[in-house]
Amino acid sequence: MTLYVNLAELLGARIEQGLYRPGDRLPSVRALSLEHGVSLSTVQQAYRHLEDRGLATPRPKSGYFVPPGRDKPALPRISRTAQRPVEVSQWDQVLEQIGMQPNNDFIQLGRGRPDIDSPTLRPLLRSLSRLSRKQDLQTLTYGSIRGDQRLREQIARLLLDSGCQVTFEDIVITTGCHEALSAAIRAICAPGDIVAVDSPSFHGVMQALKGFGMKALELPTDPLTGISLDALELALEQWPIKAIQLTPNCNNPLGYIMPEANKRALLALAQRYDVAIIEDDVYGELAYNYPRPRSIKSYDEDGRVLLCSSFSKTLAPGLRVGWIAPGRYLDRVLHMKYMGTGTTAQLPQLALAEYIEGGHYEPHLRRMRMQYARGRDQMIDWVSRYFPAQTRVSRPLGSFMLWVEMPEGFDSQRLNRELAPYKIQIAPGSIFSAAGKYRNCLRMNYAAKPSAAIEAAVRQVGASVARLLEDNHARDTAMHTD
Amino acid sequence: MTLYVNLAELLGARIEQGLYRPGDRLPSVRALSLEHGVSLSTVQQAYRHLEDRGLATPRPKSGYFVPPGRDKPALPRISRTAQRPVEVSQWDQVLEQIGMQPNNDFIQLGRGRPDIDSPTLRPLLRSLSRLSRKQDLQTLTYGSIRGDQRLREQIARLLLDSGCQVTFEDIVITTGCHEALSAAIRAICAPGDIVAVDSPSFHGVMQALKGFGMKALELPTDPLTGISLDALELALEQWPIKAIQLTPNCNNPLGYIMPEANKRALLALAQRYDVAIIEDDVYGELAYNYPRPRSIKSYDEDGRVLLCSSFSKTLAPGLRVGWIAPGRYLDRVLHMKYMGTGTTAQLPQLALAEYIEGGHYEPHLRRMRMQYARGRDQMIDWVSRYFPAQTRVSRPLGSFMLWVEMPEGFDSQRLNRELAPYKIQIAPGSIFSAAGKYRNCLRMNYAAKPSAAIEAAVRQVGASVARLLEDNHARDTAMHTD
Ligand SMILES: Cc1ncc(COP(=O)(O)O)c(C=O)c1O
Ligand SMILES: Cc1ncc(COP(=O)(O)O)c(C=O)c1O
Repeated sequence: MTLYVNLAELLGARIEQGLYRPGDRLPSVRALSLEHGVSLSTVQQAYRHLEDRGLATPRPKSGYFVPPGRDKPALPRISRTAQRPVEVSQWDQVLEQIGMQPNNDFIQLGRGRPDIDSPTLRPLLRSLSRLSRKQDLQTLTYGSIRGDQRLREQIARLLLDSGCQVTFEDIVITTGCHEALSAAIRAICAPGDIVAVDSPSFHGVMQALKGFGMKALELPTDPLTGISLDALELALEQWPIKAIQLTPNCNNPLGYIMPEANKRALLALAQRYDVAIIEDDVYGELAYNYPRPRSIKSYDEDGRVLLCSSFSKTLAPGLRVGWIAPGRYLDRVLHMKYMGTGTTAQLPQLALAEYIEGGHYEPHLRRMRMQYARGRDQMIDWVSRYFPAQTRVSRPLGSFMLWVEMPEGFDSQRLNRELAPYKIQIAPGSIFSAAGKYRNCLRMNYAAKPSAAIEAAVRQVGASVARLLEDNHARDTAMHTD
Repeated sequence: MTLYVNLAELLGARIEQGLYRPGDRLPSVRALSLEHGVSLSTVQQAYRHLEDRGLATPRPKSGYFVPPGRDKPALPRISRTAQRPVEVSQWDQVLEQIGMQPNNDFIQLGRGRPDIDSPTLRPLLRSLSRLSRKQDLQTLTYGSIRGDQRLREQIARLLLDSGCQVTFEDIVITTGCHEALSAAIRAICAPGDIVAVDSPSFHGVMQALKGFGMKALELPTDPLTGISLDALELALEQWPIKAIQLTPNCNNPLGYIMPEANKRALLALAQRYDVAIIEDDVYGELAYNYPRPRSIKSYDEDGRVLLCSSFSKTLAPGLRVGWIAPGRYLDRVLHMKYMGTGTTAQLPQLALAEYIEGGHYEPHLRRMRMQYARGRDQMIDWVSRYFPAQTRVSRPLGSFMLWVEMPEGFDSQRLNRELAPYKIQIAPGSIFSAAGKYRNCLRMNYAAKPSAAIEAAVRQVGASVARLLEDNHARDTAMHTD
C-alpha cells in the first residue's frame, strides 16, 4: 500500500470513529508531515483521497475540516479486563442464543448473520441447484481432506487483496470459520494453555477454549484500534501465553480495524515471545473502504499466523464453508480437521468455485459493503434517536454489527427477557467475555435493509433500555434513602 | 425380538460366517433346545426361519443341513493385541489414504464409500436441487445448534428399528459421523485418558484419540462376534478405562454383527465399571438380513451409551450429515459440537427430511442391502479365485467391505505401491490399528456393482499379492540358506 493511502486510512478511521467531530479542523499538512515523517505532497494526496470519500472538506486558506453531519453518540469505553487467565464461562447464555431457530417471526437483532436477500447471490444458488442434481462421485462422496482444489485456488487469489501471498497448497477448506478456529486452537494448544484474546471477543472462540480446557486472557481493547499492545506485552512477559487470537479487521463485536502499524507491532511481539497468532478474518472483505484492510498474515514471515475465515458473513452462513491458511502448522491442522469432521461437503465447495470463477463474488461484495455501510449509519442514527442519552455506540468500519454500551449496572440479559413478548432479540454483551463482563452492553445486527419493522424494533429496544435504567435508578435511590 | 428370531439370527450368523460348511449337518432340534434353554417348537420355528432365508435345508429323518455352495476361504484369525494402552500412530498413512481426490481414473478399492449410482437416490437429489434455489433464511443462514427438528424426528423414528426409544430431543445433528464420534470422545474423555476399542477398528476414531492426546487400548476381536468380553473385563479390571468405543453392527473393517447376548453383556460390564460406550452404528441399516440388528443403545437404561451415526454409508458421504444420541451427555456434546463446527449446514438436512418423509429411504435401503449382499458373495468368490490359497477373508453380514488377511510378514503398504501403476488402490490393514498392526491385511470395497473392470482389478491385486508373497518366501529361504 502506498504511503498516502496508509495515511488516509489512518485519518479516515479517526474521522469515521468520531475522534474528530463534524466541523472540527483536521491537523495541518505540515503537522502531519512531521508526525508521520512523510513528504508534504504525500499528506496532500492523502487529504485529496479523503475529500473524494467525503470525509474531509478543504476551506481556502484554513486547511481541511470534518464535513458537517449529525452528532454521533460517544464511543464505548476501552474495556478493562482482569488481565489474568480465566476459565471461560457463559456457555448457557451462548446456547440460549444459538439454540434459536432462524425465525421470521422474531426480529433477531442479536444474531450474527448477513443479509441473504441480495440478487447477487442468485448465481450461487443456481450453481448449487445445478450441481445438486449431478449424481456423481465429485458431489456425493468424500472429497480430499484438504478441500476442492479449484476453490482453494480462488481463495488464494482473493487473499492477495489482503496482501497475503499463499498458494492453494497452503489452504485447507473447513466447515465454516468455526472449524478453522477450532482446528487452529487444537493444533497449537494443549489443555491448561493460555490464549490471549481481544475483549469483547467472538464467543465461538472462547467456548472452544473452554471446551478444550484452555484459559483465556482477555486484553483491554480500544474500540478504535483494537487490543492494547502495551497490555499484550505485559501479559506476554508475565504469562506463558501459547497463542494470540483476535479479529483485527471489522472486529466482532466492536467493528474497528486495527491500524497497520499495530498489526506489524503485534506480529513483532509474537515473534519476540515466540507465540502463534490465530487471526480471524471472517469480516475482512466486508470493510466499507476500498481497498480492503491487510491481514496480519500478510506480514507473516515465519508461518506463525494461522489465518481463519469463511464465506459465512460475505455470502451465507448456511453453506458452512470456511478455510484456514495455517502456515507452518499445516500438518497438525490437517490432522485436527480430519478428526473433527473428516472431509468437508463437496457440493457447496464446487458451487462456490464456480461462483467466484464466474466473476460474481466481487460485485456481490461491493454491493454488500455499500448496503452495510448505509445500514451502519442508519442504525447509529436510530440508536442516537431512540436510546437514552448516556448510550455509547461503536463506529464499525466494516461488517454489520453495532456494539452498544449502557451505564454500568445495566443488565442486557434482563433486557432480552423484557423484549421477548415483543418478539425482539438482541445479543447480550456478556457472551463476548470469558468472564461474563459487558453485561451492560449489547450487540445489534444491521445487515438487513432498513425497514419500518426494524426501526420499530430498535425503538422498542431503546424504550425497554430506558425503562430498565429507570428501574435501576429507582432501586439505587431507594437503597440510598433507606 | 422373539426367542426364535434370536436363535435363528445366531445360527444364521454361524452358517454365513462359515462355522458350518456347505453340506454339514446342523445341530439337532433337541440339542439346540437343551443348549439354549428354549422349547423344541422354538427351535423348529428358528429352523423354518433359516429355511426361508435359504440358509438351511431339511432332509427327511436326518435333520437340517447347510445347503451346498462354493467352498469359502478360511476366516481371518482372532486379532491378538498388545492389551495395554498405546499412543495412536499411523497418521501419515491415513493422510495418504484420505488425501486422494475421488477419482474415476483409479479403481479405489480402499475407500469406504457406498455406491452412489442407485436411482433410488434421485428423489434426494431433486429435493436438494429444489431447496438450493430457495433464497431464504432456512437454507442460507445458521440453523439451530441441535439441527433441524423435522430431520431429528425422522431419525428418531428410524432408530425404532434398532430398538431405540429416543425422541428428537435426544438427537443432535452433526457434520457426518466423524463429528458425532469426535464430539462423543471429547464429551467424555480428557487428554491422557484410555479408551478401549475393537481391533481392527475405524481409523477416524483412533486418529481422533491421537489428536486429543488419549490412548487406545485395542481389544482382541473375533471376526464373527466382535470384541472379546473376557479381554474387555480384564482390561476394565486393570486399567482406568474411560470409554469403550466400538462398531458392533456390520463392523468396519471385519463385517461381523455382535450377537445380542454379547451386546447385553458388554453393557452390563460398562455399567459395572461405570464407563461410557461410544457406539458407532453407521452401517447398522446396511445389515443384509431383516430386521436390522439392535444397537447397544437400545438396551441402555442409564444414558451411558452415545450412539453415533450418519447418512454417509446408507446414502452419500458428500452430504456430511450425521447424528448423535448422546444420552446423559447431551449438554457436553452440544458444547463440543458448537465449538467444533458451530451449526450444521441446513440444506442437506432439509432435503434429507423431505426424502425420508416422502418414503424414499426404506426402499433405497432394501435395494442397497441386496446389492451389497450380492457384492459380498461376488467379492469373496473373486478373492477365493484370484488370491493365493493361504488368504483368509471375512464374512461381512452387512456394509460393503471385505477384510483380507495374508500370511504374517506380508506388507500391504508395499502392495499399494505395487498397485499404483495399475491405478488400483486398496486400504492397508495397518491404518486400522493404533499400533500399526495388520500390515498383512487389507480392506477392499465391494459397494459398486460388479463389473469386468473391478474383477480385473481384484485379479491384479491377487496377482500382486502372490508376487509379493513369493518375494518374501525367496528372501526367507535365502536367509535360511545363508
Ligand atoms: C469473528 C467470527 N468468527 C467466526 C464466526 C463463525 O463463522 P462460521 O459461521 O463460518 O463458522 C463468526 C460468526 O459469528 C464470527 O463473528
Ligand atoms: C465405522 C465408521 N464410522 C464413521 C465413519 C465416518 O462417517 P462419516 O463420513 O459420516 O463422517 C466411517 C467411514 O469411513 C466408518 O467406517
